[in-house]
Amino acid sequence: MNTREKIIQKSAELFNTYGYHGCSLSDIMDATQLKKGGIYNHFKSKDEIAIEAFNHNYDSVIQRFKKQLSQISPTDPIDKLYKVIDVFASFADDPVVKGGGCPIFNTAMDSTNGHPELRKKAKLGIKGLKTYIQIKLQEAIEAKFLDDALNPEEIASLFVMTLEGAIVMSRVNGNTDCVSIASKYLKGFIKMHLI
Amino acid sequence: MNTREKIIQKSAELFNTYGYHGCSLSDIMDATQLKKGGIYNHFKSKDEIAIEAFNHNYDSVIQRFKKQLSQISPTDPIDKLYKVIDVFASFADDPVVKGGGCPIFNTAMDSTNGHPELRKKAKLGIKGLKTYIQIKLQEAIEAKFLDDALNPEEIASLFVMTLEGAIVMSRVNGNTDCVSIASKYLKGFIKMHLI
Repeated sequence: MNTREKIIQKSAELFNTYGYHGCSLSDIMDATQLKKGGIYNHFKSKDEIAIEAFNHNYDSVIQRFKKQLSQISPTDPIDKLYKVIDVFASFADDPVVKGGGCPIFNTAMDSTNGHPELRKKAKLGIKGLKTYIQIKLQEAIEAKFLDDALNPEEIASLFVMTLEGAIVMSRVNGNTDCVSIASKYLKGFIKMHLI
Repeated sequence: MNTREKIIQKSAELFNTYGYHGCSLSDIMDATQLKKGGIYNHFKSKDEIAIEAFNHNYDSVIQRFKKQLSQISPTDPIDKLYKVIDVFASFADDPVVKGGGCPIFNTAMDSTNGHPELRKKAKLGIKGLKTYIQIKLQEAIEAKFLDDALNPEEIASLFVMTLEGAIVMSRVNGNTDCVSIASKYLKGFIKMHLI
């Protein structure tokens, strides 16, 4: 890993753990064992590091979805939907990045009022997750596995809000009870609409 | 309002807007137009202010539920459940405190890794919301309005995660689409289990 990558990776962990304001340049210096100049050689500000750290965390989230879903047969759209739910649930006990939870949602909460550029990234990130699920739902409807009376855009939003809400609750409670409940009810919802 | 109350109220707004680390003592001094000594006359630390600010925000949330639900006939447990959903949804376009969203959930996200005492308060706050809904569900089941096959504790968790997740998404998106979807599906869930 080169120095720039090391700064991004360590900062991605710090920002996801303590939030943008909870993480100072001196924390980044400690974590990377670099001096201020060593960091400013690669980035012009903490803001620029925060954006790159978000991109890094977003990629980690997407990579986990892609990796897990590549193991499912392309002709089984319902198993793909179940796997999407399992990947979300996995964030609660096997975080993609130190600090836990879903880094996209964590950034959304953290940036809403204090950091317009990060907020924009987080908003797009959440939209990306929603669109990903929406496409899987559309595939299942088109392949005549799921009832075509379902609204894929609404159901995709419902999945994101339920799973992300559950991940936050599991994170603050320190257990996985809430993600288990979310998984059970969302899988039940799919089963109820199978053709 | 006395000085102590003014400090708590202004800090409650600041913490809910920018988070614990995003809000400094000097921000509190600006918002209250007090000098450092004027604040330390009433509180021994920023931590103590943050705890009292959380209590203040928690009370505002509970007061809104109590006020809205007091308008529903005690013999109509289903309307009470619908009203609980409406109160949550109202946080998205009529915040109980400046900064928007649900201050209990915002604090949960903000404090998980950085502030054990606030985390404990937020965890208890979320449990309080869950228990409140659970009691309303139990009342509806005991009065034979709702199917007794439902698990009130699980459904209460499902309601909190879905609505809180939706509130975060509505807050970052700057619109109420997600809370409308959450309301529609949770009210549909209740309708589906009416006796």
